[in-house]
Amino acid sequence: MIKVGIIGATGYAGGELVRLLLGHKDAEIVWYGSRSYVDQKYASIYQNMFQLVDASCMDDNMEALADQADVIFTATPQGLCASLVNEGILSRAKVIDLSADFRLKDVKVYEEWYKLKHAAPQFLDEAVYGLCEINRESIKGARLIANPGCYPTCSTLSIYPLVKEGLIDPATIIIDAKSGTSGAGRGAKTDNLYCEVNENIKAYGVASHRHTPEIEEQLGYAAGKQVVLNFTPHLVPMNRGILITAYASLTKKVSYEDVKAIYDRYYENEYFVRVLDKDVCPQTKWVEGSNFVDVNFKIDPRTNRVIMMGAMDNLVKGAAGQAVQNMNLLFGEDEAEGLRIAPMFP
Amino acid sequence: MIKVGIIGATGYAGGELVRLLLGHKDAEIVWYGSRSYVDQKYASIYQNMFQLVDASCMDDNMEALADQADVIFTATPQGLCASLVNEGILSRAKVIDLSADFRLKDVKVYEEWYKLKHAAPQFLDEAVYGLCEINRESIKGARLIANPGCYPTCSTLSIYPLVKEGLIDPATIIIDAKSGTSGAGRGAKTDNLYCEVNENIKAYGVASHRHTPEIEEQLGYAAGKQVVLNFTPHLVPMNRGILITAYASLTKKVSYEDVKAIYDRYYENEYFVRVLDKDVCPQTKWVEGSNFVDVNFKIDPRTNRVIMMGAMDNLVKGAAGQAVQNMNLLFGEDEAEGLRIAPMFP
Amino acid sequence: MIKVGIIGATGYAGGELVRLLLGHKDAEIVWYGSRSYVDQKYASIYQNMFQLVDASCMDDNMEALADQADVIFTATPQGLCASLVNEGILSRAKVIDLSADFRLKDVKVYEEWYKLKHAAPQFLDEAVYGLCEINRESIKGARLIANPGCYPTCSTLSIYPLVKEGLIDPATIIIDAKSGTSGAGRGAKTDNLYCEVNENIKAYGVASHRHTPEIEEQLGYAAGKQVVLNFTPHLVPMNRGILITAYASLTKKVSYEDVKAIYDRYYENEYFVRVLDKDVCPQTKWVEGSNFVDVNFKIDPRTNRVIMMGAMDNLVKGAAGQAVQNMNLLFGEDEAEGLRIAPMFP
Amino acid sequence: MIKVGIIGATGYAGGELVRLLLGHKDAEIVWYGSRSYVDQKYASIYQNMFQLVDASCMDDNMEALADQADVIFTATPQGLCASLVNEGILSRAKVIDLSADFRLKDVKVYEEWYKLKHAAPQFLDEAVYGLCEINRESIKGARLIANPGCYPTCSTLSIYPLVKEGLIDPATIIIDAKSGTSGAGRGAKTDNLYCEVNENIKAYGVASHRHTPEIEEQLGYAAGKQVVLNFTPHLVPMNRGILITAYASLTKKVSYEDVKAIYDRYYENEYFVRVLDKDVCPQTKWVEGSNFVDVNFKIDPRTNRVIMMGAMDNLVKGAAGQAVQNMNLLFGEDEAEGLRIAPMFP
Repeated sequence: MIKVGIIGATGYAGGELVRLLLGHKDAEIVWYGSRSYVDQKYASIYQNMFQLVDASCMDDNMEALADQADVIFTATPQGLCASLVNEGILSRAKVIDLSADFRLKDVKVYEEWYKLKHAAPQFLDEAVYGLCEINRESIKGARLIANPGCYPTCSTLSIYPLVKEGLIDPATIIIDAKSGTSGAGRGAKTDNLYCEVNENIKAYGVASHRHTPEIEEQLGYAAGKQVVLNFTPHLVPMNRGILITAYASLTKKVSYEDVKAIYDRYYENEYFVRVLDKDVCPQTKWVEGSNFVDVNFKIDPRTNRVIMMGAMDNLVKGAAGQAVQNMNLLFGEDEAEGLRIAPMFP
Repeated sequence: MIKVGIIGATGYAGGELVRLLLGHKDAEIVWYGSRSYVDQKYASIYQNMFQLVDASCMDDNMEALADQADVIFTATPQGLCASLVNEGILSRAKVIDLSADFRLKDVKVYEEWYKLKHAAPQFLDEAVYGLCEINRESIKGARLIANPGCYPTCSTLSIYPLVKEGLIDPATIIIDAKSGTSGAGRGAKTDNLYCEVNENIKAYGVASHRHTPEIEEQLGYAAGKQVVLNFTPHLVPMNRGILITAYASLTKKVSYEDVKAIYDRYYENEYFVRVLDKDVCPQTKWVEGSNFVDVNFKIDPRTNRVIMMGAMDNLVKGAAGQAVQNMNLLFGEDEAEGLRIAPMFP
Repeated sequence: MIKVGIIGATGYAGGELVRLLLGHKDAEIVWYGSRSYVDQKYASIYQNMFQLVDASCMDDNMEALADQADVIFTATPQGLCASLVNEGILSRAKVIDLSADFRLKDVKVYEEWYKLKHAAPQFLDEAVYGLCEINRESIKGARLIANPGCYPTCSTLSIYPLVKEGLIDPATIIIDAKSGTSGAGRGAKTDNLYCEVNENIKAYGVASHRHTPEIEEQLGYAAGKQVVLNFTPHLVPMNRGILITAYASLTKKVSYEDVKAIYDRYYENEYFVRVLDKDVCPQTKWVEGSNFVDVNFKIDPRTNRVIMMGAMDNLVKGAAGQAVQNMNLLFGEDEAEGLRIAPMFP
Repeated sequence: MIKVGIIGATGYAGGELVRLLLGHKDAEIVWYGSRSYVDQKYASIYQNMFQLVDASCMDDNMEALADQADVIFTATPQGLCASLVNEGILSRAKVIDLSADFRLKDVKVYEEWYKLKHAAPQFLDEAVYGLCEINRESIKGARLIANPGCYPTCSTLSIYPLVKEGLIDPATIIIDAKSGTSGAGRGAKTDNLYCEVNENIKAYGVASHRHTPEIEEQLGYAAGKQVVLNFTPHLVPMNRGILITAYASLTKKVSYEDVKAIYDRYYENEYFVRVLDKDVCPQTKWVEGSNFVDVNFKIDPRTNRVIMMGAMDNLVKGAAGQAVQNMNLLFGEDEAEGLRIAPMFP
């Protein structure tokens, strides 16, 4: 039985970790960390867990936690994990960080985009970027996993094969992303009130969103050179789901079958990536609650561009689900344990 | 392995049966019946099932199905199951009917409220009303299960204990119910278009909804006499969920603790009924995707009434989940097999 | 030109006052009061008003305001208006209070339900309850208007005629109400976040909501005696709209035509109350953005009850629209000036 | 008084025409055409118009209509207007066609993208594309107006100035558009059911949507050469609103102020186009119910692209509002008559 501690268990990603781990046959949550609700019954905050979780919330004490847990998930704001982690902790427990602290290898890039001094740059080299479909082998032996951001997961998996194969010009990549509101977290802000989000759509963080360098870094590995791109997120009136629509110019004449064959080759053994049938556009509802990413593409011969699309549940494959997938790899479990959940429709 | 056939597999309740049965360790779907989509890939209709279900849709041939399946679910409009079922079929397979055909014992009441001639009244006596928490023992030996309606399930479970204990006057019961839109089915009707339902709430079927006599019959068993009540359903802009708010006059002076003790006594061994803590109102979101019914109550000393509340997912406990629960009872399975799903939030 | 000052101009009701008054041919807003946003451009808070409102927000200074305005709207939390109003202010400007401070004639009832000491009980007698359809004549000469609550407006207008005519027994009245989320205000609370409200419905304030005594008082005037009733509000995932479904026992045998004739008689000259055709249920969407209240009823001969229904936009007839209607009466304007807005659909 | 006839009065755009024209001081609707509801009360279809519209629906008889009306709006599927219009009609009444029949000057392009034979190509030359901000003078004298599509209106107004000024390379334009569901019309299709659209987002018509050539033609006039671009619409779970996010490469080094000055110059006298302040992203909710288009832009120096954004109500400026604006121009009215409606929030 893997003993699991969660720091930030009452945020939306933390709550999703609890939901998923309750269905995992080899994991047991021993610590529901939540600074804001210490000593309150976890199920009084998330009533969906009434009679399923009996524990109360505990403080964010990573030192104490490292003694009791085999793995620690940090589902907390940027900066917290880096400020808490140290050699002693990493020698006792695996750490899967759902924040951005260890996703970018270049500390300067982190500090520039996040406007934060990095508290533990010494672990940046060691940390493994936990995009399982791409870094599976390195993940297995890691101590510290940087769980990918929601937008970067969906964007990278949708675009990576065509960059890697040199089929698109990386300098032409434009990613237009749409996210449900759970991605904004559970903080009580006016902007996230029901009446402000409902019946509304807007772009935000235009040309400045922090997930931009993360996507650029990952696609840069595929391209073998630096990638600079446009990424524009939008807030959509729905709870869950991310859809990305990406555009890039083709570097050569290709047919539908050519491109389909590439996606199939990259993902034929990937349970969680579904390459859809011709002309079927991904929809966030078709993956809701599951760890799947649905991808597809369309070639536009008029403009010589390819439109790449990906849909995913931002709280599952975009956060908690991928974190559990990483945990499974770290502990030699079946990678899909606890994650064989069919999407819920409607 | 229980071999399952579904007639009406492409409606919302049918789709939910597929989702739940995929997670059942001892069940296998052998027939995806859907008259409208014969020979089309099931996963092309419900893309959430892409790569999870490979089968194509088949006709609604109950005779053929009875040879291949151990149990047949009919998730079809009123009248169809009654027109297809017969002794030969029942002798070969169990039938769990999600329509209303076998819910009302009195054929005259059925024909009056449903404006349909009943095609198989000879099975009304034999059919067992599949409200597991109340009829568990009779269900176990049955051949034909009348799976309860969504509103009646939520209403009956919320009110039953206080009627049975004589704590409320049945003649004063008023049920004000609110349902998500999946309850209206997947038929293409103007009234159910997104723009007609969104940002809107309305009552419908006022003083004439067909679930009224079903609730009255069940509460009548508890009261030991005929019950006549008001039931008003409302359409709410959300996909899933039913909330009922019921009112009745108390027959004697009781304290919170008295009433709580009754609910606890009736449901302490019922995994799927959760009696909430004092002053916590049931919310549909807290049970979404699960087979739970959350119930609670509030005494109003000013009016000497008790307000009873219940929340449930209409497609799970209100349809497919309860049908699987019935199947488990019929085949000697753990009653919760395939149904230990934590509610999804948000 | 009526010079208007608004205290609380950046709440949802305040914002709606601005929207409506911009369309009023004889009114001009001279003061956009908002403690939280002093000196910020009003249109930077409510971007819908970009290029329509040039003013900046000002403090909640009622004394200064009384010198500049003919009428002051207070769209503020309970207690504020009572704490600011005084003889000097009332002698210079009319005050229309959208809070509950002057709605209840009995100060003890106010203090018990609102858990607040009333700061200006000396004006309770003078204040006129601004339900225009019922108190039109008294409103015309008033200095201080208690603008009715949203639920009480919809409930009273839906039920009043049948109580007044003695057709229903007031002791049997049960009001089950459903409201959009703008009724909860613009405060940044976790409970009102998009992800908490969306795809969810719940009751709240069961047997304890503060609008209960307000409805009881108004229906009490109709009954000629004290009325005690049940009122249960529910939060619905939509921005605007209130629907009430009310139940009461009939005191005598009546036909549809009898009851319809009563509603018609009470409302035939009321522009803003629409008695719908037989069997048409009120829907909140049909009145969105307008000052209309749609009412209808259904007799249930089985239970000898009548079900009364009313739909309204909580921010218009339930707040700002009724406030403008009151202003029109106070200043001898056409009562519907600025309010002849057709509902927007969809 | 302008006598108005509407063909297709019970679609969403038709309904919006009715709402807007009821508030127009010089217009009177004399014909509510709706083939599907002939002889039914208009207000029984659109209950928001109860007691506001007394008329019944009439057939789509354009010949009869031309005798009674000064202007005919056709809010009907593609092909109908072209099949009905003729010289006799145009000599008696102005025609404002809300369908696509007369938007594209090249009949071959029309027939290729719409898969329809054009029934009246002889009027293509005469028809004026009714984008008022750009073609104001030609509109004034026209007999036949091609009211622009929703996406083209928002896209063209957002992008036009920078193409016209040569600041962006037209070959690099990519438009990612998001629309509320009313754009899909009121037809009863499974895809537009509440449960299919709610909590979901998807792209559709990828690289094949019919509004593509319309946008290309209009931007082509600005560029002075043929423009080929990518346009991808998405369906968003909301009733109203279109947001476009457009990307293009800058042709020279420009500052924020340079670009802002261009937008200001083009739109400073345009009441309905609001160029927002720096860093304020357009949101559909801020224009809901109004005829405004909110535009803004952001320069990304990292990629040398400019991101252009526009938000609009698809049923108003994207359909009925713009049609009324065209009518005002045709009849010498104040261009904003009936359209000075403040957006509704929330």
